[in-house]
Amino acid sequence: MASTAEHLTSTLDGRWKEVRERTRSELTDPRFAPHYTPDLAEARAKALEQMRVLASMGYAADGFAADHGGTGDAGAAVVSIEMLAMSDLSLMVKAGVQWGLFGGAIENLGTKPHHDAYVKRLIDLDLLGCYAMTETGHGSDVQELETTATYDPSTGEFVIHSPTPSSRKDFIGGAAQHATVASVFAQLITAGPGEERESKGVHCFVVPIRDDEGNDLPGVSTSDCGYKGGLPGVDNGRIMFDQVRIPRGNLLNRYADVAEDGTYSSPIENPNKRFFTMLGTLVRGRITVGGSAGAAARVGITIATKYGLQRRQFNAPKSDNEVLLMDYLVYQRRLLPLIARSYALQFAQNELVAKFHDIQNDPDADPQEKRELEGRAAGLKVANTWHATRAIQEAREACGGAGYMAENRLTALKADTDVFTTFEGDNHVLAQLVAKELLTAYADEVQGMNPVDWMRFAVTTVGDVVKKRTAAQQILQTIVDTRQDNEEDGSLFNRGTQMQMFEDREDYMLSTAARRLQGAQKREDDPFDAFNFVQDHVLRAAQAHIDRVVLEAFVAGIDSCGDETAKALLNDLCDLYALSVIDEDKAWFMEHRHLSVERAKAVLRGINERCRSLRPHAETLVEGFGIPEGALGSAMLDGPGTDAVRMATVPR
Amino acid sequence: MASTAEHLTSTLDGRWKEVRERTRSELTDPRFAPHYTPDLAEARAKALEQMRVLASMGYAADGFAADHGGTGDAGAAVVSIEMLAMSDLSLMVKAGVQWGLFGGAIENLGTKPHHDAYVKRLIDLDLLGCYAMTETGHGSDVQELETTATYDPSTGEFVIHSPTPSSRKDFIGGAAQHATVASVFAQLITAGPGEERESKGVHCFVVPIRDDEGNDLPGVSTSDCGYKGGLPGVDNGRIMFDQVRIPRGNLLNRYADVAEDGTYSSPIENPNKRFFTMLGTLVRGRITVGGSAGAAARVGITIATKYGLQRRQFNAPKSDNEVLLMDYLVYQRRLLPLIARSYALQFAQNELVAKFHDIQNDPDADPQEKRELEGRAAGLKVANTWHATRAIQEAREACGGAGYMAENRLTALKADTDVFTTFEGDNHVLAQLVAKELLTAYADEVQGMNPVDWMRFAVTTVGDVVKKRTAAQQILQTIVDTRQDNEEDGSLFNRGTQMQMFEDREDYMLSTAARRLQGAQKREDDPFDAFNFVQDHVLRAAQAHIDRVVLEAFVAGIDSCGDETAKALLNDLCDLYALSVIDEDKAWFMEHRHLSVERAKAVLRGINERCRSLRPHAETLVEGFGIPEGALGSAMLDGPGTDAVRMATVPR
Repeated sequence: MASTAEHLTSTLDGRWKEVRERTRSELTDPRFAPHYTPDLAEARAKALEQMRVLASMGYAADGFAADHGGTGDAGAAVVSIEMLAMSDLSLMVKAGVQWGLFGGAIENLGTKPHHDAYVKRLIDLDLLGCYAMTETGHGSDVQELETTATYDPSTGEFVIHSPTPSSRKDFIGGAAQHATVASVFAQLITAGPGEERESKGVHCFVVPIRDDEGNDLPGVSTSDCGYKGGLPGVDNGRIMFDQVRIPRGNLLNRYADVAEDGTYSSPIENPNKRFFTMLGTLVRGRITVGGSAGAAARVGITIATKYGLQRRQFNAPKSDNEVLLMDYLVYQRRLLPLIARSYALQFAQNELVAKFHDIQNDPDADPQEKRELEGRAAGLKVANTWHATRAIQEAREACGGAGYMAENRLTALKADTDVFTTFEGDNHVLAQLVAKELLTAYADEVQGMNPVDWMRFAVTTVGDVVKKRTAAQQILQTIVDTRQDNEEDGSLFNRGTQMQMFEDREDYMLSTAARRLQGAQKREDDPFDAFNFVQDHVLRAAQAHIDRVVLEAFVAGIDSCGDETAKALLNDLCDLYALSVIDEDKAWFMEHRHLSVERAKAVLRGINERCRSLRPHAETLVEGFGIPEGALGSAMLDGPGTDAVRMATVPR
Repeated sequence: MASTAEHLTSTLDGRWKEVRERTRSELTDPRFAPHYTPDLAEARAKALEQMRVLASMGYAADGFAADHGGTGDAGAAVVSIEMLAMSDLSLMVKAGVQWGLFGGAIENLGTKPHHDAYVKRLIDLDLLGCYAMTETGHGSDVQELETTATYDPSTGEFVIHSPTPSSRKDFIGGAAQHATVASVFAQLITAGPGEERESKGVHCFVVPIRDDEGNDLPGVSTSDCGYKGGLPGVDNGRIMFDQVRIPRGNLLNRYADVAEDGTYSSPIENPNKRFFTMLGTLVRGRITVGGSAGAAARVGITIATKYGLQRRQFNAPKSDNEVLLMDYLVYQRRLLPLIARSYALQFAQNELVAKFHDIQNDPDADPQEKRELEGRAAGLKVANTWHATRAIQEAREACGGAGYMAENRLTALKADTDVFTTFEGDNHVLAQLVAKELLTAYADEVQGMNPVDWMRFAVTTVGDVVKKRTAAQQILQTIVDTRQDNEEDGSLFNRGTQMQMFEDREDYMLSTAARRLQGAQKREDDPFDAFNFVQDHVLRAAQAHIDRVVLEAFVAGIDSCGDETAKALLNDLCDLYALSVIDEDKAWFMEHRHLSVERAKAVLRGINERCRSLRPHAETLVEGFGIPEGALGSAMLDGPGTDAVRMATVPR
């Protein structure tokens, strides 16, 4: 009979349960055992070696269509990369770059000749690629990239060029060492017969950068980013192009093409819409990064929880034993809400992956649905990555000096995931994007607008804010409709009340954001000042939206659990999650009369109460995360001197 | 004429301004230029080399009494080590271990023979020591250390021994490689003629551990902690003792001695009081760690602020330029409150150092004053180190991908300071200690009590909570007395109102903590449960106290500024600090009717207003921190390709 922890794992595993189970078993291969070295050469070689093992297992085929040489299970592709994050984040990122970003660009922006030429080879690692989007001067605002791809009709080639120091491709994973080809994002400049040469906006090109011996090709200058905050196994580098010529066919031409004579054509007329359609097909990267951050957070939290269940400090009176850390209320308060949030986010992530998978497999998917997917992916990437940063930091501190030793794993988890709040979209920029989509009801027009302009647009469409339940709509509606609320403490544990509070906050924040914007635009002369006046409000509205989506996913997740004991634990966890979110923004709820003074005080009592009721189940809850056996890799949990880990962490 | 920034620096430098200026100039020596390598051998060698340069400048003499071979300027000693934190945290920690901890133990716990034998040599680095207090099993609760020092009257020796695996000395800086001698904390076991042998509690002993070739001495087994989260230049290690014999004279015997026949004697009768008197003399370490964390935070914030003043992203309408990051409200909100808090904490740190210095130089210092100093040191260590963790993390994220590159310095600042929340006392344990001292009115009896027992004691003394203004009492009282308060927004900018709010919160939290404890003890059968029931409340009370102390120091600091322009900036910064603290705990103020709903909404408006008014002065404010020239060490601020930094950060 399955244990409660196994029921929790099964519920949390969701639709791609089998993929997760398979990966768990694959990761027990000693070649995937957690290791640590800051030595770049060693770490990079190890990550590449691990990728080759994965490739030999056919690991990457899921991400590619069957007629391109894959198996076409998009959801499985995302989930299996997320699972790698539990073993090693350098491996996860390097695999994500090769198969998700580089491979994804070929798969989604390319056409048959590209699929034929590259997909099989990149799956098998016969071709190592990198994804050269970010430049030194532009990361968040990729429409303003400066690299140029100028079409020369006399030779039928594009000339790839870096015209300024700030146009240098920067922080590109794989560019320092292993990649021999890059998918380069550049301004496509061309002219048809009799036309003026002009930029048609940013497009993606396949550009060889290295020969088989690893030397830069003529006109290409790569350099090494060297040491980073973490991710030593990822060879991030920089690329400058000096008039590098590539065949016309190297334009990934699914959404736009250039004819031999230089004539530009695209099925999408509006240049902004075209660009964001292309970008939209690359949403997988954002989903993967969020999911992987969530996975790493679960590992960190598990380590700290298990440590708190073995470490004792200070005597209690009337007892011969020192007190377990986990028995201190404050220790519970540090970790249990993070466990609750991890469950919440994973349920939301599962829904996101399913939505992505379904849209990916539906040739007639509704464009509005796609926009919503992109917004959701952005929002959950923000939530998951900030959660990881916060949770792993807390885990490190909760383990004291032992937490600071590399052999106990937490410091590398923290260092490696730290950049996740930045890459695949800076969290502040993404949160703004979430708000933008909500405020403008996913209107096509706003794509490509700068922040000020879309906010001005939003003002004219205020009132159309789209709100719909994001999961298991029927269940959620019933819970809200049948809630029985009163002013007693207990009602804060009422799921319907919690949901209503989350909804009310989102609604109010969004509508007031729009209204304040309107007011500011009347008052301020400078449109930027008007935008800036409400920027913080807009970001908070986005956060409120994300919180609501996550809570709804948690509720739906509980409903999917078949075991009553596990379900009861999930319900308590969900309370803890909901109350923690309310507590963080408690002043807002009070200011807006959603919480009386008396009830506000009950929030903290409720949190403490749930911490106490969940304490006896702490071990079960983290076992429920389903971290693969051996993947914790924390010496202190196996007793001092675990050779496998320590050997790698002592200087030679 | 001095610039506004110079006036700010001068005000912030405080009483040891000249020491700070001298160190600034010393740190421009290229041998102290920021560098980065994760290679342990290289980093350790570099840190030791830098220490030898410092020693040759007579850097360490300040920390030791003139008749021991020093110059006896305790404040200068703390300040000069704090300054090192701006250059390199490994150096700061290694210097702190040698001269502050190891040296401090000899200086403060030893007597003339020890001073004669060791002080001059350790100042000059002819003797390298380590401070072997923490064990694998006990870090926070050092009274329970397991290492034994058993006196053998037949030979006149102490036998130092590690009886269990958990008694292993752990995380000891210097123990892995460089130290040849350790100050070892161990249970002193002895018996006078006719007495039963028993432990007299933890005492400190000088124990040689290595010969001149670096080999472990007989009976000593050292090992290397290997890679850590940061601080690669500090050689942390472990030590096990197998019946190691040392002469009787190696007991640091200022507070207790053992006669040749084994008779134990001490001028302090109560064993707890004796132990905490000894520990109390080591308060310098805690002060130094807090101050250094604050210094590192200022470096990180300065880097992010300067980046925000050069980096542009996204076009604004009606403008050819992209927008400077620092012009976005949300960017201001991320950094300016951290700048404000850095000023606040540094003013508080300056007062702490002055108080420490004066007490150190006063042979008749009031024991109550000493206790207060220890409490203040603990509180500010907590505040400064959590501020550093949070501020440097925010700075990293604010610089995006560039922030993740080692050559831009932020990742090492974060990694190196991460353990500061742990060492010299875990922050949660220290916060509890602050509350304990306040709740028990610094009563002697509570020293050495476990948390449960002191809380029970506190209940009986409730009402005696000591509250006195911590700085410039007259000025502060005048401000509070003359405040004119009303319910308008503006009054939140009234300094007297702010101070009153901070005071009221502290008073209320402390008195209710005591009352709740009383209630819980009547209700709960198990005293631990009663303690646990209010543990979170107690920690919040400590935080409220620390906040009040810091605000008062800020106000006194402003008063010490002689320049009107600088003073006006400091006043705005102080508003921003006060409002940020109120905002973080806004729900509490509302719940307890110290803030009406309308006024609560004005807090955020006030914060945004101060961000806007301080924005034009962002550069001046960080220049005011007085980071030594060249000590930022951030390649992106000097333009790409700054050789000095980059060379060290690219793999060879």
